[in-house]
Formats: sequence, C-alpha cells, structure tokens
Amino acid sequence: MEFKVNSKELEKLLSKIIPAVPTRTPMPILENFLFDVKDGQLTIYATDLEISLIASLNIVTDENVKMVVPARLLYDFIRSLKDTTIHFLLMPNKKINLVTDAGKYTISYLEADEYPVIPTLSDDKEINEVSINGIELRTTIERVSFAMSKEEMRPAMMGTLFEFTDEGLRFVTTDGHRLVNLLKRNIKSLTNNQYVVPERAVSVLTKILDEKDVKIYMTKTYMSFKLNDIELITRLIAQKYPDYSSVIPLENEFLMKVKTKELHDSIKRMMLFSTSSNTRRVKFSIEKTSLEISAEDLDIGASGEEKVACEYTGEKLEIGFNSAFVNDVLNHLLSEEEITFKLHSATKAVVIEPVQKKESQEMIMLLMPVRLNS
Amino acid sequence: MEFKVNSKELEKLLSKIIPAVPTRTPMPILENFLFDVKDGQLTIYATDLEISLIASLNIVTDENVKMVVPARLLYDFIRSLKDTTIHFLLMPNKKINLVTDAGKYTISYLEADEYPVIPTLSDDKEINEVSINGIELRTTIERVSFAMSKEEMRPAMMGTLFEFTDEGLRFVTTDGHRLVNLLKRNIKSLTNNQYVVPERAVSVLTKILDEKDVKIYMTKTYMSFKLNDIELITRLIAQKYPDYSSVIPLENEFLMKVKTKELHDSIKRMMLFSTSSNTRRVKFSIEKTSLEISAEDLDIGASGEEKVACEYTGEKLEIGFNSAFVNDVLNHLLSEEEITFKLHSATKAVVIEPVQKKESQEMIMLLMPVRLNS
Repeated sequence: MEFKVNSKELEKLLSKIIPAVPTRTPMPILENFLFDVKDGQLTIYATDLEISLIASLNIVTDENVKMVVPARLLYDFIRSLKDTTIHFLLMPNKKINLVTDAGKYTISYLEADEYPVIPTLSDDKEINEVSINGIELRTTIERVSFAMSKEEMRPAMMGTLFEFTDEGLRFVTTDGHRLVNLLKRNIKSLTNNQYVVPERAVSVLTKILDEKDVKIYMTKTYMSFKLNDIELITRLIAQKYPDYSSVIPLENEFLMKVKTKELHDSIKRMMLFSTSSNTRRVKFSIEKTSLEISAEDLDIGASGEEKVACEYTGEKLEIGFNSAFVNDVLNHLLSEEEITFKLHSATKAVVIEPVQKKESQEMIMLLMPVRLNS
Repeated sequence: MEFKVNSKELEKLLSKIIPAVPTRTPMPILENFLFDVKDGQLTIYATDLEISLIASLNIVTDENVKMVVPARLLYDFIRSLKDTTIHFLLMPNKKINLVTDAGKYTISYLEADEYPVIPTLSDDKEINEVSINGIELRTTIERVSFAMSKEEMRPAMMGTLFEFTDEGLRFVTTDGHRLVNLLKRNIKSLTNNQYVVPERAVSVLTKILDEKDVKIYMTKTYMSFKLNDIELITRLIAQKYPDYSSVIPLENEFLMKVKTKELHDSIKRMMLFSTSSNTRRVKFSIEKTSLEISAEDLDIGASGEEKVACEYTGEKLEIGFNSAFVNDVLNHLLSEEEITFKLHSATKAVVIEPVQKKESQEMIMLLMPVRLNS
C-alpha cells in the first residue's frame, strides 16, 4: 500500500493541527496523529480528548488505510524537508517507509483501533448552526479571553461564554475581579442557548482562524468550528455559567472620560511602583478635569504620582484598583481612542466602555475596586 | 543637589550596562547601579563581581555626588517614559525625587561606599593593548563561543582563550568533544600572552559591540574592552588553558569536500532519528563521490539514511559522530559554501576547514568521533 503527498502541503496541514497534540499526557497514544486514507483523501486527526483538530488533503492513492503515527517526529521531519514528493509505503512489520529524493526513512506506526474516537456532530439532531467571519471571531476572542479565570474552583469561569440571544451573540468572560461582556448584534442563531467553551479551544482557535468565514455547529456537549481546510471540535464545559448580568451595575451615575493611551502609559509606570503588595494597588483621585494616579511601594521605598486629563461628572472620588488588572483592561481597549469609566463609589464595581459606540457591537468591561487603607 | 538628563539618552546607556546586573545574587547590593556625578559627567557602573560595565554621559549639574540606585526599577521606569527631561533631586532622607512633565516619582538610594570597588586597569604597569573592529570581534566570538565547556571540572575550558602570538591573535574554545581554533593574522600586540575570558564576558560582549573599533587592554587578572560610550571590564580565569595544539592531528591524510548547506540540511533531519541514545549517533559512510549519512533510533523504531555528494581522496571509511555536535559545527560554518573534512580513521579526531581560505584568518574546527557498534 502506497500513497504520495507533497511535503509543503502536508507541512501546512500538520502545522495547523499539531496544537491539539498534548505535550505531556498520561495517554501516550495522544502523542500521535491518526491518518485516515479513504477514496483519494487523507484525513488527519489530532486530539487531547478535550479538543480535536481535523484536516484533509487530496492525495494520489488507490487503496484505503488507517494508521497512527508519532506526531512530533513526523511534523519535525516534514518541516525539515524541501518542497518535494513524499512516498508513504506501508510495510508488513508495522513500519512505514518514507521515500523522498533526498533519502529514505522509516517510522513505526500503531493500529488505528488504539486511537480514541473523535466525536462527530453531524449525527446529533439538536444541532445549532451559525456562520461568522474568521477575523471578526478572532478579534472578539482576543478582546475577551484575558478575563477567563485560572481558578479550578469554578470550572465554568475557566471558559468563554458564547450566549445566543435575541439581541445577538454575546461573549462573556470573568474571573470575579474583571468581567468582559461583548455583544455581536450581527450574529444570531435560530435557537437561543448558552455554551461554555474551554480556554484551550479558545486559544487554539485564535491560531487557526483566517479571513475566511467559519461555520460553528453546536450540540449540548460539543462545539465545532469548520474552516476551509480544518475543523476544530471541542467538548463544552458542562457547568452553568454564573449569572453575570446581576453583577453589572446599572446605576453608576458618575462618568469619567479619558484618553485610552494616555491612561495606559501612566498605568504601566505606576505598575513599577506597586509591585510588592498582592493587590498591586494604584489610587485614582478623580476631580472634574483631572485624574491623579498614584502608587506607593513601601517595601522598596518607592512611589509615583501622575496627572491625566479627564472629563468627570461627579463629586471628587478616591478609588483603588489592582494596577495589573487596569493594565489588562486597557491593553484590550487600545483600539479605542477614548473610554468612559462609569463610577458610583469607592467600593462598587466600575464599568468601562468605549466612548465611540459601534452599531454592530456593544462592549463593556467591568473592574472591581480594591480597598484604600487611608 | 540636582541634575538633569534626557530620558532616551539615559535609557540607551542603561540598556547597555544592565546585562552586568545579576538577576539572582546572594549580594543584593549588586542589583543596583552606582551613579557617579562628577564635573558635569554622569558615570554609571554595574557589576556582578566577575564582569563590570561602565557608561558615561554629559549632564547638566554644578555639584558632585555618588549614589547607589535600584537597577531594574530605574531601568524599567526610564524605559516607560517618553522622550523627556528627568530632574534628579536628592532629598535628605536617602530618597531621590524624579520629576518629569508626566509626574513625580520617588525612589530610595544607598550610600556609594556600600558598592563594591570596580577595578581600573590604567594603574597597572604590565598593561598590554590592542585595537580591533567591533563587528570583526563580534563575528569571531559568535563563531567560536559555542564550543566552550559547561563542565565546572576544568574552569579554563569554560572560557575563550585569547592568545597573542607572532602569527596573530588566536581564539580557542573546546569542551573536549569539539574544538575551534580561529587565528586573526591582522591583530597583533607588542607582548605575546594567553588570556582566558569567562563565558559571561564573551556573551555580554556580543551584545554591546558595534561597527566602531574597540580597544582591548589586558593585565594578568583583568581584560577591558573600551567602546565608544561604554567599557566592559572582566576578571580573567586564573587557570592555564589546556595545550590545545597537541590534540589537533596534523597527519589526517584523507580529504572529503562537501557543500556545507547540503550536509547541514541532511544532519538536521538525521538529528530527528538519533534522539534516544546519549551520543545521538549518526554514521558517515564515505566513498569516492558520495557520503551516506544514516541514523537509527531503536527506542522509537525510526531510522533514516541520505546521500550527499562529496569528493573524497581516501579508502571507504565508516565513522560515527554525535549529530548535535556536527550540527553545532556546521551551524557556525554556514557562511562557507564548501568545507573539507580531514580524516584518518574511525577513532581519530576529524579536522573541518573552509575550502576557501582567507588571507587574514585561519579557522579549523575539530570533532571527536563516537564509536560505531557494528
């Protein structure tokens, strides 16, 4: 049994699915690709049992075969080749000979029945479907993913909520200190439902999305992202997402408008003067036209204070934040020239929004304050 | 007491001397810069007691002062500023106020007498001096440094030998498995002597060298590299360098000429098939016009063989090498289109040289073979 494939075409596919191969796993079988040659098509699978990546390629062959091959070795080998034709020759002793014009190589393979079954969504009757532009989805994920929790206590918060509503598709992430709520009004599905996508799926997704549209299929337990030449299937987090809307304050009546980059530059400096405490506290002293930002690091005997111009509608207010969290939020708002802080008091969550609203999208970030000692 | 300095000028200097500041040290004082303001000049020192870096800058001030300031905090802070003027104001309570148009910051300083004394070479009577182009020195160091030993058993081999001879300046590195011997015929000093420069000095040097000439001053215990705006002083390794010339075989009579890149590409692939043994063995089977390279990884049941064209003057020879060491050597010969292997037998060191000789420079690399089982 023999088939031929171009080295660069194969390299391109393998580079896209190798992210699903776990680097350390108690199940060594997962360190392999499943190769499925069927009717002139080679389909390659990689999985860590949470996410699976699947890629296909037309090849020259007359027979069908399945085999399990070492993922990292094969990928590194294919990458090391020039643009050439690789002949895969299956030998009787569970060996594959790989022949190119540069040389001859042998690797071992395992039987396909040792490889875990990759879920397919097409059989499921309760399937939900939606289409979205790849870059749009990537940009959205990049904006919201930073606020996912790393604490295993609340598994749902370790993922990103995809919530289909009558208003559109809403993305929510939170770790209890910060929350991002981004609504895409232009994306709607026939059925409204909530899906919690694990962090690893979200992170791999940003690596494979391109300018083409992606089709998303959803069942109760799986979500599939179908791109042009590759499919990502992820298990969903089987936990209800916390009721995020109850923590978003609606009556924050004091508005502070600032230039995003100016505030961000200042916060980056203030982070240097707030390293030793675990809240990394920075103080905002807000007046009508000026925001004073200050930090003091008692351990190293250093402090800093800066003034940033603002437009503020409330009475003088002093409020503390974790400087690293403010920095995270601003990092993901840098495409906005100006932002508004909606405030109420020194102990209540603050809502941060772009000044310039978009028709197709609504985004708010929420930040919990930290206590000021003085 | 007050002085002013431009943020970007200071950043440039600090970025060059921060490599001498140790990241983990039992002596916290070394995590600081020494600032010495004297007669309108600011000189900044950083040291880990092995290497010291010194930079100077003209500043606006009327008074003289010395102070010890936290290196990482100050560098990160200066980097975070826009192009602006920083006012350094010394306060009575061991604080420095830093004032810019963005804000006001305070850091603590220590007295200068707590900082270690930085050696100066100018007082030494037995000083030796030479001048070399910065890029030329950097290129040379980049070619030889990979073969320095990491084993603490032989401290001299952990450095690079600078040997001044009648023929020129010779650079030698070896770890017992590989050896590089590079002679610069165009660089000579008045006195012939050997100096063993520690790895850290060599590595920092490549980061600070530029196209300008560098002056090298040498005493028995220190070497100084004087660049335009910065000086590197390093303690020398106080051990005799092993007699490298006795291990370089002179009678290797069989010559094999190959294309460097072609062999390198092949070796990179063979490394994938020689991962499990600790010698990472690759076999060279050499005939008149063809070199067969093969490797076999029994643990993972994989193997590879390739043929590379060569011109060989000897009888058929089989010889084994550590593929990672061959790769290292070839990596540092990639600027040469063709190289010659000088061989004698399967157990004797091999000499590798560029085919194209340079008038001003002579370079050989030496590689020990590994045993072939078959």
